[in-house]
Amino acid sequence: MNLINENTGLYTDFYELTMAQGYFLSGKKDSQAVFDYFFRNRPYGGGYTVFSGLAELLEMLGNFRFQKEAIDMLSGLGFKPEFLHWLGDFQFKGRVISMREGEVVFPYEPCLRIEGTLIESQMAETVVLNLLNFESLIATKAARIRQAAGDRLLMDFGMRRAHGFGGIQASRAAIIGGFQNTSNTYSAAKYGLRPTGTMAHSWIQTFGDELTAFRTYAGLYPEQCILLVDTYDTVHSGLPNAIQVGRELEERGFRLKGIRIDSGDLAYLSKKARTLLDQAGLDYVQIIVTNQLDEYIISNLLEQEAPVDGFGVGTALSTGKGAGSLDGVYKLSVIENNPTLKLSENIAKTTLPGKKTVYRVLDEKGLFLADAVALEDERDIGSITHPFEHGKSMDVGSFKKEKLTGQVMEHGVVTGSVPDVYEIGEYTRERLSRLPDEHRRFLNPHTYKVGISTGLLKLRDQYMKKYTI
Amino acid sequence: MNLINENTGLYTDFYELTMAQGYFLSGKKDSQAVFDYFFRNRPYGGGYTVFSGLAELLEMLGNFRFQKEAIDMLSGLGFKPEFLHWLGDFQFKGRVISMREGEVVFPYEPCLRIEGTLIESQMAETVVLNLLNFESLIATKAARIRQAAGDRLLMDFGMRRAHGFGGIQASRAAIIGGFQNTSNTYSAAKYGLRPTGTMAHSWIQTFGDELTAFRTYAGLYPEQCILLVDTYDTVHSGLPNAIQVGRELEERGFRLKGIRIDSGDLAYLSKKARTLLDQAGLDYVQIIVTNQLDEYIISNLLEQEAPVDGFGVGTALSTGKGAGSLDGVYKLSVIENNPTLKLSENIAKTTLPGKKTVYRVLDEKGLFLADAVALEDERDIGSITHPFEHGKSMDVGSFKKEKLTGQVMEHGVVTGSVPDVYEIGEYTRERLSRLPDEHRRFLNPHTYKVGISTGLLKLRDQYMKKYTI
Repeated sequence: MNLINENTGLYTDFYELTMAQGYFLSGKKDSQAVFDYFFRNRPYGGGYTVFSGLAELLEMLGNFRFQKEAIDMLSGLGFKPEFLHWLGDFQFKGRVISMREGEVVFPYEPCLRIEGTLIESQMAETVVLNLLNFESLIATKAARIRQAAGDRLLMDFGMRRAHGFGGIQASRAAIIGGFQNTSNTYSAAKYGLRPTGTMAHSWIQTFGDELTAFRTYAGLYPEQCILLVDTYDTVHSGLPNAIQVGRELEERGFRLKGIRIDSGDLAYLSKKARTLLDQAGLDYVQIIVTNQLDEYIISNLLEQEAPVDGFGVGTALSTGKGAGSLDGVYKLSVIENNPTLKLSENIAKTTLPGKKTVYRVLDEKGLFLADAVALEDERDIGSITHPFEHGKSMDVGSFKKEKLTGQVMEHGVVTGSVPDVYEIGEYTRERLSRLPDEHRRFLNPHTYKVGISTGLLKLRDQYMKKYTI
Repeated sequence: MNLINENTGLYTDFYELTMAQGYFLSGKKDSQAVFDYFFRNRPYGGGYTVFSGLAELLEMLGNFRFQKEAIDMLSGLGFKPEFLHWLGDFQFKGRVISMREGEVVFPYEPCLRIEGTLIESQMAETVVLNLLNFESLIATKAARIRQAAGDRLLMDFGMRRAHGFGGIQASRAAIIGGFQNTSNTYSAAKYGLRPTGTMAHSWIQTFGDELTAFRTYAGLYPEQCILLVDTYDTVHSGLPNAIQVGRELEERGFRLKGIRIDSGDLAYLSKKARTLLDQAGLDYVQIIVTNQLDEYIISNLLEQEAPVDGFGVGTALSTGKGAGSLDGVYKLSVIENNPTLKLSENIAKTTLPGKKTVYRVLDEKGLFLADAVALEDERDIGSITHPFEHGKSMDVGSFKKEKLTGQVMEHGVVTGSVPDVYEIGEYTRERLSRLPDEHRRFLNPHTYKVGISTGLLKLRDQYMKKYTI
């Protein structure tokens, strides 16, 4: 089930096409280039980011084509026939080197790079940024919510406030960050996710009285019955009616699965609900709460010992509330085998030249200690230096290191297997468990160290001098 | 060029399907229902919202189908064969009554309602919310940026930070809010928008030296040449090289169209650029600035008299920075010809029962004074009352009124013509020009009055008593 199945190549910023024609017409079509994807700011003021969107990106790159309709449009805009003729046969044939999807990543380290002709690697820019920035934003939010919720059930209910069709990717990224299921049926079908959902307030309103509405639902779905109890009055109507239906289900040999509270004080009401359900002998009935939740509200509810078994999270999850965007960029680092960089008055915005590899430095327990960005051909990473504060360095020579980046696409074809979305979620969970707590806390997390190797530092200094006027 | 061209019906929250099957199996399939779409909070703390997303919504409703793949998926999830057989033939055949796209709208007034069978109107919920909430959010942001920028050129550069495929709708909504063009080539093709864009920093880096890069671009695009001047050093390299190329273009009988500054202090650099360009006799060259702009930064640049001719706005526009979501909801108001409502401890969250029409009250100059929500069959709106502060009322009997809502779909088919996106943008501009300044200012705007009619007030009170326990 492909969404963008026609004219995928048009899903790009227009300047990629004006530049592509420019490279074509000025004889640079077959120049070789390397671009890096990285971001500079940690979203949500948090200590980590979850890298996500890779499988989507590889699918888009594999389908990057310009069909007749696209060529006709570009022709009408004045693009030259010789370029359009070539573009009609275009396929992305580049190489992609990337971290694994679900990896825990940090500012300034290249998470992904693309190597190929200048045209194809340039034209890949917009899809790289559009997909990786957004899915990583949401996977990170989901991981934070998972962190707050412990092992409780987490359901993605964000489709109605998601950014239009962006909801499709948001639901995928939610699972990668640690959610169990989603209300988004389209994404469930597309990515093999578990869909979830029972009833809205309108179901209750339709039947006129709440007890009839509950009874009808329980009759139809005796094994999957979660009753929404706040349409009229949670304590005086919703809960008594749910208890009544719970007892009727027992008589039929079933068990009421849960109740859902969608308004009011969720701490007070969940405690009240637990008491009433337990007194009625329905101690197995789960309590699900929804309504404008995020990682902070969930933490707060659990601090108050609210007896909640599951959370449905909507807007804050699917829109990445508290950040709204991840500031990833895509920068040229090699052209025709020569390292290159973009200068800036601000050293933090000067880019890192050359082909690079990222290593994770592990402590004696296997926990994550720091990341090292090195040149691809560099061996023996001894000391690493802060990317823009030269005074700060760290000797990592004696520590064990993992190489984080590897080839995932060659000649435009995916190499290796693409993991299932829940497998990526498991990988995220495992990786986050190895990130020390001080980088995971919500309030002023300790900054994880990312340093550049001696070889890369030397190369950057050399090229900064070359271009400084 | 359809994006979601398969299994459109799956683009929905799963509970719509469990409820649909429930209505089907409990004999309520052909019950008649009315649902309202409205929102409660003004985004960005602003005084107005621009209603957007209608044409997209109507297209989705018209294509709401469940193809074999969707039916198979639902079958695997335990849906009943008799329901799935019916669902396979399902088409949305309802009626849609709506405000015009581009209308200036306010909290608590129903912008759109859907009338039809309970199943079809219920299943429409998710697409209504997903599309209207997001496009209205972005059209409103774009209108605020337009307000700050006056008549200067505004370009949507938001695709790379947009929420995945949500960028497709964001670019459409940007035009509705008042932008002239977009970098998003896909949306340009899909909606007939004007695409724009020239070069990235990588273009400059590729040619090794900046002058050669500029000269090559000017050679290829002599009539559409906008040079990016901040790759190495704006004042000492980018501007002198751009001036050199501008002179060379003059010698060939062309004119350099513009320069773009993407970093540094945009007020300082734009003034410096204007001076240098004017001194070189290139007073016609436009100055375009980009880099993390929003309505506040643009206002601030113009207060400093920065000589900017155009702005490219990215992240803040395409993600609705400062709000992130619009809290629109979709609530059942009539079932089988009986008005209905959802109660809440909070009167502001109790819904309005019955079929309703919205009127705009105009002052003697034709400016917008207040909106009145009335019952559809109510005549002679004399006085209106605040929706949840009974003490506040206003006599509007003597003022001229416009009816804002009208039929846009009947039997699942669009009635009337669908305006071009730029026409909707013109309508937005005209409507906003009739909203008094105190509702348009960014800082603590005066609240626009939305009241409910005497008849609606009476009906709500009656139904609140009926359901209160």
